[in-house]
Amino acid sequence: LVALAKRRGFIYPGSEIYGGLAGTWDYGPFGVALKNNLKNSWWQKFVTAREDIYGVDAAILMNQKVWQASGHVTNFSDPLPSRFDLKDQKSQGRTFNTMFQTQIGAGDDAATSYLRPETAQGMFVNFKNIVDSFHPKLPFGIAQIGKAFRNEIAPRDFLFRVREFEQMEIEYFVRPEDWEKFFEYWRKEMSDWLTDIGLSSGQIQELEVPEGERAHYSKRTIDFEFAFPFGRKELCGLAYRADFDLKNHSDVSAVDLSYYNEETKERLMPHVIEPTFGLDRLILALLVKAYSEDELGGEPRIVLKLPARLAPVKVAVFPLLANKLTLVAKARAVFDDLKANTYNLVATFDDNGNIGKRYRRQDEIGTPWCVTIDFQTLEDDTVTIRDRDTGQQERVKIDELIKRLV
Amino acid sequence: LVALAKRRGFIYPGSEIYGGLAGTWDYGPFGVALKNNLKNSWWQKFVTAREDIYGVDAAILMNQKVWQASGHVTNFSDPLPSRFDLKDQKSQGRTFNTMFQTQIGAGDDAATSYLRPETAQGMFVNFKNIVDSFHPKLPFGIAQIGKAFRNEIAPRDFLFRVREFEQMEIEYFVRPEDWEKFFEYWRKEMSDWLTDIGLSSGQIQELEVPEGERAHYSKRTIDFEFAFPFGRKELCGLAYRADFDLKNHSDVSAVDLSYYNEETKERLMPHVIEPTFGLDRLILALLVKAYSEDELGGEPRIVLKLPARLAPVKVAVFPLLANKLTLVAKARAVFDDLKANTYNLVATFDDNGNIGKRYRRQDEIGTPWCVTIDFQTLEDDTVTIRDRDTGQQERVKIDELIKRLV
Repeated sequence: LVALAKRRGFIYPGSEIYGGLAGTWDYGPFGVALKNNLKNSWWQKFVTAREDIYGVDAAILMNQKVWQASGHVTNFSDPLPSRFDLKDQKSQGRTFNTMFQTQIGAGDDAATSYLRPETAQGMFVNFKNIVDSFHPKLPFGIAQIGKAFRNEIAPRDFLFRVREFEQMEIEYFVRPEDWEKFFEYWRKEMSDWLTDIGLSSGQIQELEVPEGERAHYSKRTIDFEFAFPFGRKELCGLAYRADFDLKNHSDVSAVDLSYYNEETKERLMPHVIEPTFGLDRLILALLVKAYSEDELGGEPRIVLKLPARLAPVKVAVFPLLANKLTLVAKARAVFDDLKANTYNLVATFDDNGNIGKRYRRQDEIGTPWCVTIDFQTLEDDTVTIRDRDTGQQERVKIDELIKRLV
Repeated sequence: LVALAKRRGFIYPGSEIYGGLAGTWDYGPFGVALKNNLKNSWWQKFVTAREDIYGVDAAILMNQKVWQASGHVTNFSDPLPSRFDLKDQKSQGRTFNTMFQTQIGAGDDAATSYLRPETAQGMFVNFKNIVDSFHPKLPFGIAQIGKAFRNEIAPRDFLFRVREFEQMEIEYFVRPEDWEKFFEYWRKEMSDWLTDIGLSSGQIQELEVPEGERAHYSKRTIDFEFAFPFGRKELCGLAYRADFDLKNHSDVSAVDLSYYNEETKERLMPHVIEPTFGLDRLILALLVKAYSEDELGGEPRIVLKLPARLAPVKVAVFPLLANKLTLVAKARAVFDDLKANTYNLVATFDDNGNIGKRYRRQDEIGTPWCVTIDFQTLEDDTVTIRDRDTGQQERVKIDELIKRLV
């Protein structure tokens, strides 16, 4: 899968020509397309289509006090294997803080800060801004898609354990007495969306995380696990953070982050339900699930059975023969028409190599439909549509093509 | 404008409850929406709709050798004002390298690297990957939207001079003898897109950057400048980088990044034309241009005259009176129908305060259309559509609403 992802332009090792940088990966053209489709699906469902969730995009660099208040400066450490020689003065005894540290500003004005190890704090520090701008009623949420960074001591397992990754996350603020109700509500919402993108309940296992293993801020956590080739591992998580964050930020910043309920005339500190999705892990799970080796017409093939709505390319258009100008011109016309008349339907044109090679290429990147323009097209304006998964071809009128593909 | 952007949920100061972090800003709900609309417009025009440009999303953290080869470790410095006391050993004499530095890995395995100060290198180091995966013919390009970071000594001017920002950038690879032709081609493409998003040629001035002021890698540069309130400043840039980057990366990495032309059987080092767009600066320019104070019906108002296709909210739906249940129910039905039947048309429902207040709120966030459900609606299924810029209202059938708004 790693080899296919590189060969076909999904995922490349980061800084590869310099021998790489462990735990970093670059998304190639089809990887970006798949990632954008996944982000759009998430944002559409959890932000745009809802009236109670507010999207933000907070800076990666934050004032160091954020990470003092959140507990990350003290608690965000991994045990360090004994082979490491400790030169770093920040490493106390045998643990190692996994936040990346940097200096902001110059000379005496320089201040230490960190690359954010999670997107969550960008939402908590904007809680008051959202309340002041939008006056939302409880319950309401703040959502964000963005990068986070962790200095993993041993990055591994392709996109799974990496040093730079992307999170899609919601902080949902509720009245304290409502937390159990909304915890269950979000458990179902998460599960529904995973089903939407083709990771149905059979492949996802929900694991109740026992007290000793939960993060320091959480009173209840469920991990959504997926059976990766290297074991069953966390893909998404749902955590009840209580009022840990708003309370700590109120204490440390001396800015009151309590919520004033206009109707009951009461002040309260909202509690938080946090659904988190690991974007790169979701991409990896989708690729693992989609990857198949089968036989078609007696020939072995590799095929990515990605859901049509997430596939990087929706339809490929071919002239049957690349050296027949009438076929190429007609195929170009069909292709241009498809591109001009469909919103968000990514089409590709391919006249490189014989038709069998082109099918194989599209199968490997997961294109659900291939449309071929042949000699019959020139007579009756029909084309063949080939289905990726079954290999079956069907002849349809060009006029009906868009309707069949959207 | 800064006050409006905060009050209405476009842009908040970063880490604000902790007194901020200079040079960082957080996008609020309407800021994210505006930013996403702008990104999508760019990506659609320069990546999705073209066959010669390949999108990537490279990691922010890269092997330090990338920045040695690119010249940034040696050259990416600003003169340091004399008030600064120099403790940083990396600062030689009176200059200061503006890359943010961090340590990757632990103990003896730790290596210095930097937050990327530009997205460009993420494309150059993937040049060979793109060639190997896609076998493109020259000319072709690689495009990326992503964050970059510079430790500005004196961040200022709102979103203009910041420490964390987003770039939209293309590296376009051409045969050396074609560079002037494609430089002119991209000059026009950039200007066309700026016109598309409402920054027409009258407001943008193209400045030929003289030799002494160009970046170390560039043989010709044009800055696209916009008249900000704090002066005429660079918004986008077009640079001819020759073979500076591919040649240096070939030399330092010992990986041959030359291009083999199948047709002529020749190897050559492509030259590069680089169109770069500062996403945050574009947002600032759009807000500056859109911000107006005028009078409507004898009342002063603030209105953001954003182009309809970029506005965070396309249409607001109101019941005339919030306490008439029949009006509210009908308005809800119209709203739900609009949301369900339009792709990518962001609608909002508002029954808070009187209708005048609601218009003023929508004017301040730049919503092009407001639809009001009144008593006549209950009789004949017509609604009023109000135009943001003129304040004129027109009565239309509910059935025709979608057609009017898309």
